[in-house]
Amino acid sequence: MEKVICKGFKAAGVASGLKKNGGKDLGLIYSEVPATAAGVFTKNLVQAAPVLLDRERIKSGKCQAVIVNSGNANCCTGGQGMLDAIAMTRFAASSLGIPEELVLVASTGVIGQPLDIGKIEAAMPELAKDIKPDGMTNFAEAIMTTDTVPKVVTRQGKIEGKPYTVTGVAKGSGMIRPDMATMLCFVMSDIKISHDLLTEALLSATDISFNRITVDGDTSTNDTILVLANGLSGATVENPAHKESFQIVLDEVLTGLSKMVVKDGEGATKLVEIIVRGALTNKDAYKIADTVSNSNLVKTALFGEDANWGRILAAAGRAGVKIHPYKADIFFDDVMIAKDGMWCGENAEEEAAKILKRDEFIISVDLNMGQGSASIFTCDFSIDYVRINADYRS
Amino acid sequence: MEKVICKGFKAAGVASGLKKNGGKDLGLIYSEVPATAAGVFTKNLVQAAPVLLDRERIKSGKCQAVIVNSGNANCCTGGQGMLDAIAMTRFAASSLGIPEELVLVASTGVIGQPLDIGKIEAAMPELAKDIKPDGMTNFAEAIMTTDTVPKVVTRQGKIEGKPYTVTGVAKGSGMIRPDMATMLCFVMSDIKISHDLLTEALLSATDISFNRITVDGDTSTNDTILVLANGLSGATVENPAHKESFQIVLDEVLTGLSKMVVKDGEGATKLVEIIVRGALTNKDAYKIADTVSNSNLVKTALFGEDANWGRILAAAGRAGVKIHPYKADIFFDDVMIAKDGMWCGENAEEEAAKILKRDEFIISVDLNMGQGSASIFTCDFSIDYVRINADYRS
Repeated sequence: MEKVICKGFKAAGVASGLKKNGGKDLGLIYSEVPATAAGVFTKNLVQAAPVLLDRERIKSGKCQAVIVNSGNANCCTGGQGMLDAIAMTRFAASSLGIPEELVLVASTGVIGQPLDIGKIEAAMPELAKDIKPDGMTNFAEAIMTTDTVPKVVTRQGKIEGKPYTVTGVAKGSGMIRPDMATMLCFVMSDIKISHDLLTEALLSATDISFNRITVDGDTSTNDTILVLANGLSGATVENPAHKESFQIVLDEVLTGLSKMVVKDGEGATKLVEIIVRGALTNKDAYKIADTVSNSNLVKTALFGEDANWGRILAAAGRAGVKIHPYKADIFFDDVMIAKDGMWCGENAEEEAAKILKRDEFIISVDLNMGQGSASIFTCDFSIDYVRINADYRS
Repeated sequence: MEKVICKGFKAAGVASGLKKNGGKDLGLIYSEVPATAAGVFTKNLVQAAPVLLDRERIKSGKCQAVIVNSGNANCCTGGQGMLDAIAMTRFAASSLGIPEELVLVASTGVIGQPLDIGKIEAAMPELAKDIKPDGMTNFAEAIMTTDTVPKVVTRQGKIEGKPYTVTGVAKGSGMIRPDMATMLCFVMSDIKISHDLLTEALLSATDISFNRITVDGDTSTNDTILVLANGLSGATVENPAHKESFQIVLDEVLTGLSKMVVKDGEGATKLVEIIVRGALTNKDAYKIADTVSNSNLVKTALFGEDANWGRILAAAGRAGVKIHPYKADIFFDDVMIAKDGMWCGENAEEEAAKILKRDEFIISVDLNMGQGSASIFTCDFSIDYVRINADYRS
């Protein structure tokens, strides 16, 4: 397969020593020309220094490079943390010979510990030297924390016969809950598009991807999605049909990455879509899907491959919206395990047990009350989740 | 120590075969005379048959016996489940020779499986024969599910020189979240008190006990607290001072039981009080305490004995109420680990690490914004929690 490259983008990832295990922990993305940029950020009131800085800088709608470290979230680090975030952008800017204002920054890792900025400064020459068109996997590795695999998705589209590429890189496997998942996501494209249209497209794609996944119900302080479009492919968004083309490709990239994040959820062994149908409103359906997908009792039952539909209905019952338990039907894939809120019997149980053994399946709850629906991707909750998070700082 | 007995109450617990391991699973409480009764029940919209039945019957304000089974929650069991709940009260009533309407019922265990009422009927003669004044421990064992210890608390008070006793029995170690904890709690007293005052006292005691604990954030379909007061001690609540005396004793019993429930939380190794101070309102403080105490990331860090205050502040930041992260101070017992939202350094870290090794401690968050405060008891989140809940039905 020919390697698809997003024109004019280079990336790198190196080890600066922030990660105790000596793994790659410092990444850089660079566009040969200033790109149009858009971003969405965490809604947590506790926001890391790089998030606060990016919110300011992205108002210009322009970005040419992004520097990212893992191993330390630079969060709850006060004024010094902000100086450190700015320093990271300054190091990158001077290495690349571009204005500091065109550099954005992100951090991920432990919260509340001072960032060792000296290590980042020392690693900068190596990082800048390492950037290359096919450096995306190195970059993806450098931003991993408890992730077990690097996450890169690339898709192509065409506008007026001209091909363009969208490449996304993400990290995140814990502290994952809408809105947004705890994660960092960086999307590059060689399409040409205005800042306003890019922002619209990003918000829309985020709503159907990262705002629909959950791992453990915790929302991070550092969540960041940035998208850079440098226009070097020649494909240009000039009318609604072009926008639609780009939206489809961007949706695919973000949806693909968000599923990779859940599937790589800390300790996760299963990727499960929770679909709620027949609610009075979409909002009601979302609340129920959110409660079910974050229930520890549901998630441990999934880990145990136990078709424990009673826990699913019980979670729906505490979601804070009106339901009629004795109207609800519950399915594992196409197997109905409960009808009108009651067990369908041994045969259904046996069929459901087979579904539960799969790596991926759908749980659907039909409330039979109205037309509202919603869906969220979640994972099971395993012994390893606890192991990973009890040990995270040590 | 002399055994304190609540006058006129008898109890029993036997094995009917509902529990696969052959343990005690059927319990009975009996008062020699009809008692004044009050109850509070789950707010989950999915409610088990016995809860629905008790809600109706308790309107009379009278109760003389309570029959309880573990091993099956009789929930999501439809019309048949209601017939089975009624049958349980009929079996007890006819064994004891009292009106069926004076019998209340509770069930706990797996949701969504038909109740094997035949086993309960068959065990009834043995159960009725077994009742005795000191049968409370047998009863406490019969209502256990994943509990590792029976939970009984007895306290005494005096009104106008006349001593009275309050004895409470509880079960519950998973599906625990306000309001209420998933649990069953039965309180007996030989005090004489009106239905209205008893209800008031119960609501007040519940608010400071079972509505302030959390194990896993799931609210059950079967939560029930019943209190029976048969008046046989001669101590009578006739004025506000008497009521106050009874309230103090009842508060102690329910608070004691609720802490036992958290401490026995599924897989729990630590009992931790989350205190939030300095919020704008008590409601804000409660929301933050609730979010922190239910955060899987906070709870796994507690299991790992990791003073990970960043996760605590991050949870506070997503609680949905206004906070200023850079005003917040965080303490483990009396050790300040973060001041103005920032780390207090290595010394504090070392001191905090010692606190984290304790079985019981307090985490306090002072938001330094206003006068609002709240407190919730929680436990850590261990590998065994997952093990227990992945295996629960098998």
